Amino acid sequence: MFELLAYDRESKARRARLTTAHGIIDTPAFMPVGTQGSVKGVSPRELRELDAQIILGNTYHLFVRPGLDVIKHFGGLHNFMNWDGPILTDSGGYQIFSLAKLRKITEDGVEFQNHIDGARAFISPEIAMEIQAALGGDIVMALDECVPYPCEYDYAAQSAEMTTRWAKRCKAVASAVFSGESSTRSSRAPDALGTAHTTARQLLFGIVQGSTFEDLRKQSAQAIAELDFDGYAIGGVSVGEPEEEMMRAVEAAEPFSPGDKPRYAMGLGTPPQLLEMIARGMDMFDCVLPTRLARNGTAFTDTGTLNLKNAEFALDKRPIEENCTCDACREFSRGYIRHLIKAEEILGLRLITLHNLHFYLNLMNRARIEIERGTFDQFRKAFVADYKTREAMRVE
Amino acid sequence: MFELLAYDRESKARRARLTTAHGIIDTPAFMPVGTQGSVKGVSPRELRELDAQIILGNTYHLFVRPGLDVIKHFGGLHNFMNWDGPILTDSGGYQIFSLAKLRKITEDGVEFQNHIDGARAFISPEIAMEIQAALGGDIVMALDECVPYPCEYDYAAQSAEMTTRWAKRCKAVASAVFSGESSTRSSRAPDALGTAHTTARQLLFGIVQGSTFEDLRKQSAQAIAELDFDGYAIGGVSVGEPEEEMMRAVEAAEPFSPGDKPRYAMGLGTPPQLLEMIARGMDMFDCVLPTRLARNGTAFTDTGTLNLKNAEFALDKRPIEENCTCDACREFSRGYIRHLIKAEEILGLRLITLHNLHFYLNLMNRARIEIERGTFDQFRKAFVADYKTREAMRVE
Repeated sequence: MFELLAYDRESKARRARLTTAHGIIDTPAFMPVGTQGSVKGVSPRELRELDAQIILGNTYHLFVRPGLDVIKHFGGLHNFMNWDGPILTDSGGYQIFSLAKLRKITEDGVEFQNHIDGARAFISPEIAMEIQAALGGDIVMALDECVPYPCEYDYAAQSAEMTTRWAKRCKAVASAVFSGESSTRSSRAPDALGTAHTTARQLLFGIVQGSTFEDLRKQSAQAIAELDFDGYAIGGVSVGEPEEEMMRAVEAAEPFSPGDKPRYAMGLGTPPQLLEMIARGMDMFDCVLPTRLARNGTAFTDTGTLNLKNAEFALDKRPIEENCTCDACREFSRGYIRHLIKAEEILGLRLITLHNLHFYLNLMNRARIEIERGTFDQFRKAFVADYKTREAMRVE
Repeated sequence: MFELLAYDRESKARRARLTTAHGIIDTPAFMPVGTQGSVKGVSPRELRELDAQIILGNTYHLFVRPGLDVIKHFGGLHNFMNWDGPILTDSGGYQIFSLAKLRKITEDGVEFQNHIDGARAFISPEIAMEIQAALGGDIVMALDECVPYPCEYDYAAQSAEMTTRWAKRCKAVASAVFSGESSTRSSRAPDALGTAHTTARQLLFGIVQGSTFEDLRKQSAQAIAELDFDGYAIGGVSVGEPEEEMMRAVEAAEPFSPGDKPRYAMGLGTPPQLLEMIARGMDMFDCVLPTRLARNGTAFTDTGTLNLKNAEFALDKRPIEENCTCDACREFSRGYIRHLIKAEEILGLRLITLHNLHFYLNLMNRARIEIERGTFDQFRKAFVADYKTREAMRVE
């Protein structure tokens, strides 16, 4: 169930609430990325304290290691990692196309060798659904081909059409399961189902592709919308294209992605990009920046990023960000955190990770409040201008 | 103040309580090692939740990085790292002798190049005291020379005598400070004092050396005891010598280390070794094993260590140790932790570190209770026998 609670008058931003088997997600929402069954550097308890309402699990990584048998043995990903809130699993496609080796893509699916031990595997739309059923996520994604940037028009067009046919096959699997016609699936992988996930319905999102071509984005969005998913994702963005191209790709797809369903802009982005995406009607986001940059000593603030490795912070008694309510800012100084990062102490990256996740989650909370108040557009413009100006000054 | 609360009748074990400027330490006590201003992998909040009553800070590491100026700027180590419980700082000697390069030891002190950037530095007994005054630890250690194993008798004898002379100079600095005659120190390093630590008295412990030679251990213990310290440490143990030699070194020194003061066996050891040391009259311990082995996937249990990387744990739904009350054991399975370690996820080493520190701290708590009950010796014998037997079986 997706309840729309408020709209912004100046933009396409909306405030809504998505109900899943493991709880409610207030949107716009940010989903911390739990790549291998752990959001890097933080514990499930810390995620709860950060008020994270949903996390993302990467199907490809979990499929490769520890493997499906292990996760099924533990009764699904929630039990395995001790996270009882909502989980969204991706289809595995993105990592197959970015990490795996010796890929062979056919209409049937993708054959590949994983990047850990080189073992061969094959994933089809049906298998992607079965794997995600076994993981037991609350939201699962259709298998898509994510083309790189830049991409030739003809390839992007053919690929987007195949992604639509794959989406149709994923939808068919989900429909069969929820109407009880699971016999065809059972013959394929008798053990994949039948665990924790069978009691509650998994929401299935389709994915719009089309690279940077507006007409392809439009066609893909229309075709995916016709399949009637529980939500609509925009994939193939933030893959190296200029920010303007990314915005245009989303703008092209958005009008054809049903407004009464959640819209998920995949794999992005910076804080200003998230607000710009919200203004363009997007509701959900996932991004590794807060955790990945933290491990390099980079912290997010309202006025851009700080690299805490810099010598200027050695004697700085201030928190990462004044008035921030995260544990790292309430208890520790920039100078101490700088020391930890320079000395390669794990606590350093833990503290910046906590702060950065708090920053992203809190930015979504602020966006929700501003939408409710009818002041989102001013907030977005002021935030983006201030962030970009000061970030630029800092980089000089 | 050191209050002796109970003695074991079958051994030299005692249960006591040491009062410091930042709080009480119940002994026998284990001190987690905060090498570079952070106990590796855990936060101060987690240390408090683990009921750690005191942590150790390594003077050498902090002197090299971030450097004294930084820590003084933040008002001492407690403020810098946000730990308001007791801290013991070592003298820096051990790391100078084990990590630094191009050491030149003279009667005056040690010249060395640090292992990080090769910068030259000189530490004398007086300077070691000044550095520790600036760090602001509740317990500080006299500068000693820690000789390697094996060590020739003549060198060990001369070194132990010099360590005694250095101890006398450290004691003289402390006596001057607390009688107000700090003019000689101020002339050496005017900024070293005058911060957080001046309000409360720092306890100063002397260190017994003498390598593996019983007569030298006895002579060193007698000479150090004559200087009247607040506590007595046994150094130069657990440096590669056989366990029997270590036990004999401690047994030789103990009768000459005043019984009304805390006794600290430095830098050890395994869980059975700690209980054996308690039975030999030792009160305080520090050791990197719980944190260091955790980073390698090794967990401590009553029946020996488990290497959680082993394939046998992949499907193991049990906690690291049944009935353990630590957060790692209450919330996570061996199988999940194994996955995290194999996937090099930080949460894996965090969880094992938490468990291992809990194990060591709880072992001391159990020892204290057994001493109070008059059942320590049975407890020790049963624990040691079971631990060693099962550990041996596991290794086979």
